[in-house]
Amino acid sequence: MSEYIEQNQTGTGIGKVEKQFFTFATHHRMKLESGDSLSHVTIAYETCGTLNKNKSNVILVLHALSGDSHMAGYYDFEDAKPGWWDIMVGPGKGIDTDRYFVICSNIIGSCAGSTGPSSINLETNKEYGTSFPFVTIGDMVEAQKALINHLNIKSILSLIGGSVGGMQVLEWCVRYPDMVQSAIPLATTTRHSALAIAFNEVARQAIMADPNWNQGHYYSEKKPDMGLAIARMIGHITYLSDESMRLKFGRKLQNKSALSFNFGAEFQVESYLQHQGNKFIERFDANSFLYITKAADYFDLAGQHGSNSLVKAFSKCKSKFLVISFTSDWLYPTYQSKEMVKAMKKNDLDVSFCEIDAQWGHDAFLLPSDRLDNLIRGFLRSVSNEG
Amino acid sequence: MSEYIEQNQTGTGIGKVEKQFFTFATHHRMKLESGDSLSHVTIAYETCGTLNKNKSNVILVLHALSGDSHMAGYYDFEDAKPGWWDIMVGPGKGIDTDRYFVICSNIIGSCAGSTGPSSINLETNKEYGTSFPFVTIGDMVEAQKALINHLNIKSILSLIGGSVGGMQVLEWCVRYPDMVQSAIPLATTTRHSALAIAFNEVARQAIMADPNWNQGHYYSEKKPDMGLAIARMIGHITYLSDESMRLKFGRKLQNKSALSFNFGAEFQVESYLQHQGNKFIERFDANSFLYITKAADYFDLAGQHGSNSLVKAFSKCKSKFLVISFTSDWLYPTYQSKEMVKAMKKNDLDVSFCEIDAQWGHDAFLLPSDRLDNLIRGFLRSVSNEG
Repeated sequence: MSEYIEQNQTGTGIGKVEKQFFTFATHHRMKLESGDSLSHVTIAYETCGTLNKNKSNVILVLHALSGDSHMAGYYDFEDAKPGWWDIMVGPGKGIDTDRYFVICSNIIGSCAGSTGPSSINLETNKEYGTSFPFVTIGDMVEAQKALINHLNIKSILSLIGGSVGGMQVLEWCVRYPDMVQSAIPLATTTRHSALAIAFNEVARQAIMADPNWNQGHYYSEKKPDMGLAIARMIGHITYLSDESMRLKFGRKLQNKSALSFNFGAEFQVESYLQHQGNKFIERFDANSFLYITKAADYFDLAGQHGSNSLVKAFSKCKSKFLVISFTSDWLYPTYQSKEMVKAMKKNDLDVSFCEIDAQWGHDAFLLPSDRLDNLIRGFLRSVSNEG
Repeated sequence: MSEYIEQNQTGTGIGKVEKQFFTFATHHRMKLESGDSLSHVTIAYETCGTLNKNKSNVILVLHALSGDSHMAGYYDFEDAKPGWWDIMVGPGKGIDTDRYFVICSNIIGSCAGSTGPSSINLETNKEYGTSFPFVTIGDMVEAQKALINHLNIKSILSLIGGSVGGMQVLEWCVRYPDMVQSAIPLATTTRHSALAIAFNEVARQAIMADPNWNQGHYYSEKKPDMGLAIARMIGHITYLSDESMRLKFGRKLQNKSALSFNFGAEFQVESYLQHQGNKFIERFDANSFLYITKAADYFDLAGQHGSNSLVKAFSKCKSKFLVISFTSDWLYPTYQSKEMVKAMKKNDLDVSFCEIDAQWGHDAFLLPSDRLDNLIRGFLRSVSNEG
């Protein structure tokens, strides 16, 4: 998720929605892929729309790295901005809440209500910090599965998510092939390239180099704000594209036409990045950034589910797929989507693939696009009519 | 310049060479483009080959961001590695020291012998730190011009440089059209894109966020090593390419086949970047990194010499050009080289352009390539035969 879309958001939301919570693993510990475990796992979630009698209209939206459960509408009518995917989720929108019951939950490891490193460890009564166990994309999916069980839902009409959310979509399809009727992985990959790992690693280094990070135990002290802001700036560059940055900023100066000859932000792109970094530290936890980027780097569908064969990884899948990539996304380029489509097709899965011509880079999946709306709307109609 | 090429260097150097020094502006101050000035400006330089009677065989090599004057051969025969462009400069090589007198000087603002922020300010007897004035690509060229005057050279057969070195090549041609017979700007641009500025800015932020940076006054204290290492890691990613990183690292783990579930470097690409960062802090000054990246961001040939018209900026040029770009260079993509070629051609300049098919990204200009060797060799022969 990115702040980049703010100015493009229409604000025509679904109205007031509510953050809800579900806690599990209170009597037994949740086993994690690392071999570690976690107890009292809380999931913050939001639902929009109405569950039908057959419970056949469930859509699960999976958020990206820095997202949260608040996907649409407003918590309070005075809120300045609606949920992060309000342009897509709502009455009559691409994901139509008049037709579907849409659920979005905050991933574990995050910091917006679900259990993560900034949560209180009930065993110590202190924040976990870096004593928080490593969580994988698979663990995130298992926590979502616990929520779905709790809601007594047996079948999901469609899973939709971009970026790290798309990884969760793919992981769901592979883990629970009988539960998932269809899936839309957007602007995502089945495993990070060395380039994507490299950017995440440098961002993590920036956080860990901040003396306030203090090995992850900073919750009663100053936070590693500088490090987290730099990490966010690095991330932001990878969400944009050469073309979008040229169109949006070019070499425009912030305040004046003459060069300042100092090290302050003077090009607009510098000021924009610093602004993004500074906004981010108000709402996000540095340790969560470390844990979630690591989970994304670890994600390897073929390695974890197919003995390094992507074809094998998808072999038990039954879902119908709509795979979408964006031409200017250089973080998860189209060739990576094509690899997954090829592997799906080798399993005779019903796959549609679309590369959307977009200049906005990886962030394109969060930006207003009639093309994207129509693709998602059409796909959901086709799978819901089949059901 | 990059350490990336080390393992590919042949080491068949020109033999022992010597670092020389020239100091000017001892009686008057050197005026800088910022309006500031500088006195006692020292230039460290190296020459290879022999100046002919007519002084008609002079080649000036301009180094990139983190380079130095030591372009070829060894300072000492026990040196582990030769100068940074030893694969190109030497007897019988692309830039043939049996034929040409080749000069390379360390840019001002840098830290390898030429005056920069880590130099002693004779007026205070302390290192300049951030009291060092801002220097531009134009100022770097003026300092080189002072050296060329000192060597009593009136005409340069060819200017050759990649990346920030290529910016100096272009600036020379525009400032001293009568002195420059030919020029080879490699993997460069006439002005940074917003993307290139963004990466430089985040790298600078990483340095300035390091508490040891201390507003640039750290020379008698701990240096901002963590910040500089992170800055270098960011830079390194931009010198490579998605393809080269996939081929070189992919998702290979450093030590073992199982995931470590900790925040240490475990993917090879992480360990490589950390290694590059750690090596860099031993040889480079953090303030120099700030000043030189800022000079590169400020560089704008059209803005500074053509009232925003690149055609106008080149209007007084007389040099013959060979412009070279590399397919996988996403820092200074081919379209940027094409823009300069187009503007040169509109001035009826004699321009050859070649986009070399290379998977190694921006760094390709420093890597062994028969194609690059032959292009440079052939071009230099043609211009020297004309002379």
